[in-house]
Order: sequence, then structure tokens, then C-alpha cells
Amino acid sequence: MYKENNLQKMLTERVLGPTGKGLGDVSSQLPITDTAQLGWNLLQEDVSLPVAVLSHSRVQHNLEWMRSFISTYGLKLAPHGKTTMSPALFHQQLAHGAWGITLATAPQVQAAYRFGVRRVIMANQLVGRANMAIISRLLQNPEFDFFVIVDSAANVEQLGQFFSQTGQRLKLLLELGVDGGRTGVRNEQDRAAVLDAIAAYPQSLALAGVEVYEGVLKDEVSIREFLRRAVRELMTLEANNLLTSDTVILTGAGSAWFDLVAEEWTKLDIGRPLDIVLRPGCYLTHDVGIYKASEARIHANNPVARSMQASLLPALQLWAYVLSIPEPGLAILGLGKRDAAFDAGLPIPAKHYRPGSEAPVAAPADWQLTAMMDQHAFMKVSADADLQVGDMLALDISHPCLTFDKWRQLLVIDDNYTVINAVETFF
Amino acid sequence: MYKENNLQKMLTERVLGPTGKGLGDVSSQLPITDTAQLGWNLLQEDVSLPVAVLSHSRVQHNLEWMRSFISTYGLKLAPHGKTTMSPALFHQQLAHGAWGITLATAPQVQAAYRFGVRRVIMANQLVGRANMAIISRLLQNPEFDFFVIVDSAANVEQLGQFFSQTGQRLKLLLELGVDGGRTGVRNEQDRAAVLDAIAAYPQSLALAGVEVYEGVLKDEVSIREFLRRAVRELMTLEANNLLTSDTVILTGAGSAWFDLVAEEWTKLDIGRPLDIVLRPGCYLTHDVGIYKASEARIHANNPVARSMQASLLPALQLWAYVLSIPEPGLAILGLGKRDAAFDAGLPIPAKHYRPGSEAPVAAPADWQLTAMMDQHAFMKVSADADLQVGDMLALDISHPCLTFDKWRQLLVIDDNYTVINAVETFF
Repeated sequence: MYKENNLQKMLTERVLGPTGKGLGDVSSQLPITDTAQLGWNLLQEDVSLPVAVLSHSRVQHNLEWMRSFISTYGLKLAPHGKTTMSPALFHQQLAHGAWGITLATAPQVQAAYRFGVRRVIMANQLVGRANMAIISRLLQNPEFDFFVIVDSAANVEQLGQFFSQTGQRLKLLLELGVDGGRTGVRNEQDRAAVLDAIAAYPQSLALAGVEVYEGVLKDEVSIREFLRRAVRELMTLEANNLLTSDTVILTGAGSAWFDLVAEEWTKLDIGRPLDIVLRPGCYLTHDVGIYKASEARIHANNPVARSMQASLLPALQLWAYVLSIPEPGLAILGLGKRDAAFDAGLPIPAKHYRPGSEAPVAAPADWQLTAMMDQHAFMKVSADADLQVGDMLALDISHPCLTFDKWRQLLVIDDNYTVINAVETFF
Repeated sequence: MYKENNLQKMLTERVLGPTGKGLGDVSSQLPITDTAQLGWNLLQEDVSLPVAVLSHSRVQHNLEWMRSFISTYGLKLAPHGKTTMSPALFHQQLAHGAWGITLATAPQVQAAYRFGVRRVIMANQLVGRANMAIISRLLQNPEFDFFVIVDSAANVEQLGQFFSQTGQRLKLLLELGVDGGRTGVRNEQDRAAVLDAIAAYPQSLALAGVEVYEGVLKDEVSIREFLRRAVRELMTLEANNLLTSDTVILTGAGSAWFDLVAEEWTKLDIGRPLDIVLRPGCYLTHDVGIYKASEARIHANNPVARSMQASLLPALQLWAYVLSIPEPGLAILGLGKRDAAFDAGLPIPAKHYRPGSEAPVAAPADWQLTAMMDQHAFMKVSADADLQVGDMLALDISHPCLTFDKWRQLLVIDDNYTVINAVETFF
């Protein structure tokens, strides 16, 4: 369901630098697919720090892990692409069995489409003339398979009017929500209004199933109940012949609770072909913060996860220099809010490397970031820490989404810290 | 001190879209300098929301305000370019009397250089082989005038070794710091070590003056004392013949306390030619949060600011759609941490516009953002608020630096919300 050749061709046309950060010497423009030929190595100081790097082996491990998890449950995967917004990574996810890509906005869909993605769930409302126009242009390609969620009669009416004028038919998913949550219909009255509005545009709108984002809830009991409500809703829609699309979908699952979604929805039979689609995005790089915590729960509770040999592995790190040690016990790193997420815990020093030494060593546990400014981080160390200006730190992160969007390209490294690829982002 | 023709030529070679967010229909690539020809208007829904927009008239006002402020004090301006990282805006700052551009990292310097900026203060330590190599390549152009700060003998030694090998001479500024602050030498011992290290590389390193960042302090008394310490330091260096550069600089001033720096340093005479350079960056767009608070103090206390007719004006806004009103009193906006700074207050609803209506109106004061997720904002409204799915909100922001870096291009609008330009960023 994606055009590998087309994607590869588009990627080949992309170039590295020369204005980007986190790169080595690219005085002239270079096709990004030639990055490995440069032979950059982090430990040889070939790359300008700060840099964001992906571990090739760990990303591959995570891709295989999720392929195995999903296929064991007999489900489909549409990873949330908003996490990375990197078509080269979308390509790897699709090559590892993903059914499609999930995205959050019309411009994100457009970026993915441009690089060959041809099946998309937009897990968000499509609002506004220019956003509808973007989707309409993409739908001119009959090979483009697209689903978007709705939760209000007002939005359905707007979509119906717009797509009546273009003569296209848009596939909708009814979004269920919970009180105090984000989007999604809360009650029977709003649900009925949405369905009535869809029914008013039979030529332009088709109802293709049900969508939830269970991540707005915080405990297993209420999440399981929410997931069962989605099943009941889908059954009711089918029983009332309201699923007017050729294909029918039931979709949920962020990166924190996908195990429950898999458990609840596996082997669901509504009496007609059904694609049950999970949408986690952060599994690809994982982290040592919010998703490490989720993963510990999944590994403890979910039988499929438990049966697999290894859990997801953190695959995204930032490297930065010690710029200054102006006082005993305080190191200033060349890394800031411009480079790393800071909304779910600050980056965590993982490795310490002194240029010229043999190999990175584990950073002492008492080296901790206490604050970040735009371009600087404050790292507390012991007063007698073996640390010098010019030393390098590798830092783990929490919340990959808000780290990826700080970088226009990330470098992919092998286990020897040699750069073997670069992937571009489109935020 | 900048090459206008070169800059304009480089900008003409840049294109809009088609993968970016916050744009209208750019199905094919278009030179960014042709943006006005598209005739986009925000109120006509020609642009995909969310979008970041700069008010042309307000940016012009702020440019003139700062030109007037600086020239009244007889000082020089090197705006901190890290705020916007937009060469097109650097160009406007230079055209409005700026002496140079300040930047924070070697890749930022490289990006500015590429678009014709030829005088830069790097208000940060230059650490690491690849970063030094970037600067060395730029210094191959004798027209490139570059200053970088140092605060440790270790860093000076590294710079001395590197630039000895390239045969170039690097101009350094001694950074002073304060206990509990960020970088900068704290005491006489460290100061002497830095100066000794510089003296060991007379062919490769030249001391060109003194640098402070007073923004690490929080009250006027200690800031004034810090600024006077910088003057004493510069006098001492001059008296001891340690200023070995042809040109001598004294530089300080972030966006919050530039008035004190101007007051303290105006008319300073050290008996030789001296450039006193202020480095605020956020004045260009201002905000309604942290810098509005600073500006109120400046306008109340500083006689030059008080004498000017108008203060700085907030010039950067975000526009977003109402995606859903899932419960009475709660609106979900299509705007998130991917689009706006959130570390110094959430965006503030300023205007409300219903497509098809005559003009935007002031948003009620009780419409307030309570939370943001990656791609969504939660806006609290009254239960009977006159608000619909598809309505547009214009939001003011706090902390322009971390808003600019969410956008690869921003649209420049006139007072009728028509798009008259677009400026690209290079983060």
C-alpha cells in the first residue's frame, strides 16, 4: 500500500545541509541518501553537536517488536506519523508490515503523500477551507485511501458542503469521546446529530467506522470500558446499515495503552470484513521517560509482550558538548529547549565521552540536568567530577514527539557511532 | 556590513511548500519572494490553519523603535538572531541600522553567513572540532567579521590549538559571569587563567573585549553592578595592553534589561575606539507575556523609552480553528505544542473570527487556554459562548524564540490580513 520506488526517488532528491544543525561538513549540497559515504563518526568529532541520533539497531529491534506484537493479535498497524514526521521512517514502518500511516493535520497528510504514503488515517478533525482543499487535491488520486474522524454535526455539515462541490466522497470515522477528555462525541444526542448530518450527504460522505483515542483516560478499567463502548457502537452502526463505506475500520491506541486495545479488539467479528487498526507512534524510538513507564506496565501485564524476548528499546539520543564548568558542581551543556523535549522530564545524561579516549562510559547517576534555556542546559555534577570542557554527553530523552520536531534531520548511527544514514523531518 | 544583493538573490532561490504547514495552496514549488502574488487572505480561509503570522506594520514599528532607542544612546545593535533564525528578518534588522547579528551556535552562524550576514557575535562558547571547522571555513572570507566568547582556559587552549593549525586568527571576548548564573568567569583565578591561555597563542587568538549576559540576574541593582564590573574589566584589559584585536567591543543585553545596559554604558570612553553592542532579539516581535512585562518596566523607568510615542508592539500571532466543542464550556483548538511556545505561559486568545462575518472581534477575556497537547489546545469558554466549530481564533504568544522554532516559514500579513510576504527560518 505504498510506492517504494516513488518514495526512494523522492528521498534521493533531498539534500543535506549546508544550513542545518547536527551535521558534519557539508559545504556543498549532498543527496541525503549519500550520507553514509561521508564516513562521519560521532567519537571522531566529525559532527557538529548538539545532534540528534537514532540507533539503527534499536530502531530495527523496535520495528520487529511491533510487527510481531501486531501480527500475533491479527491486527493492523497505522503508526502515528506525527511523532517523527519523517517519510524515511514511515517507509521503514510500512516495510515492516504497517497497513498505513496515521497523521494529525492536513499538511502532515500532504507531506506523507508527497513521499509515497497512500493510506492514511487522519486522527483529527478536518476543519477549514484550505485544509479541506489539501485533502481534496490528494483525493484526486484514486489510489489514495483516506479516513478522517468527525465528532460534530457542524463539522460534518461543513465537510458535506465542501465535498459536494468537489464531487468527491470522503470516508469518515465516528469519534467517541469521554467527559473531561479531548474530542469525540460524549452522548447519544450528539452522536445522533452526527449520524443525521452524515446521512444528509450520501454522495459526498461515507461512514467507515469508529475511532477512539483511549489515551485521554488514565486507568485500565475505564479504558477497557471505553474500548467496549467502541465495539458496541460499531455493532450498532452495522446493525442499522449506517456503515456506508466499502471498507470498515475500528481504530484506537496511542503509544501508552496499545496492549489493552489489542486485547479487547482481537478476534472481533461484526459479520463483515473489518480492519482493526492500532495507531501507536512512539514505539519506533521509545524513550526513557513517559513511554518507558508505559512499557513496563505492558511488559508486566500483556501475555504477548511478556512472551517476546526483549522489550522496546530507547533509540533516540542527543549528544552535546560541555561548554563550561564555571563553578564546582555545575556544567553548562550546549543543548537546550531548541534541541530536546522538556515537557515530560528533562534529558537524562546516559554516556560520557572524552574525545581521544577509547569509548564512551556510563555517565554517573548523579549527573542530572536541572534546567534548560533555549540553547543551554545546566547539569549538576559532584564538585570533584571527572569532567572537562569539550567532553561529550549522550542524553536519553522523554517524549520523542517534541524532540523530533526540533530537528530537520536526524543522523542514524551504527553501534560504533558511525553515521550510516540521515532522515529528514517535515514539521 | 551585509550584502543586500547577495541576500536577496539567495532568498529568491528559496521556495514555498509544498510540504509545509501554515500555507495556502502551493501545489507546485514557488519562489518565496513571490508569496504576495498568491493574494492569500486569512479571513478568506486561503491559508491552512494553524499558521504563524507576523504583522508587517508592527514589525516595522518595532524595527524603528529599536533603531531610535539605540541611536539616541549612540550605541550599536547586534540583535540576537537565535530568536527568529530568519535571514529575511536579519536583513530587515541590518537595513534598520543593526551593526551585526548575534548568534548562539556554529550552525546558526553558518546559516546566517549563507544568506549574506558578514558580522557576527557568537554569544556562546565555540566547542568541538566540527563546530570550530564550520567557523574556520567561514573565516576563509576576509570580509567575515566574527567574535566569539570564552570563559575557560580549557576552551581557549582548544581554540588556540585548532586555529594554530588553520593559520587563522580568532577574535575572542572574555565572558564575565556571576555565581549561580550560566557561563562566564566568576573569579580572578579563572579570569587570569583565561588571559594566560589567550596570551599563549598570539598568532591565533586575539582578545577583542568583554561580554556579559545580564539576563541571568533578576534585579536592577545587581545588574547595574554587573555591568559596571564589565566596564572595569575592559578598562583593566586596556590598561594592561591585553586587548590585542584591532577592534574592541563591549557587549551585553538580552531582551529584558537592554535599557539598563544602554544607560550604564552610553558615552563610555576607554581612550581608544570602542564598539558598545547591545544584543536584544525579541524586540522584533515582542510578546504579551515575559517581554510585555519587561517592556512595562522599561517604559516606566527609561527616559528614552518614555520619550518615544509608542512602546514595542506584539507582532507575532497564531491562528487556529475550533475543531470541536465536545462539552459545554470546552473548545478544542487545532493548535498545540507543535505550534507555540508553552514554557512561559500558554497562548492567549486575542481575536475571534467566524468565516463569512465582517471582521475579527476581540475574544472575550474568559476564553483561556488551560492545556496543550502536541496538536491540540483546550480552551475554556462560558457554557453559552457564541462559538462554533470552524470559527477562527487569533492567539497572542509568550516567548517568541520557542514559537519561531515551530515554523519553517511564517507569513507576513498587512492590516487587512492579506499575506504580503513569507519568511523562512533555519533552525
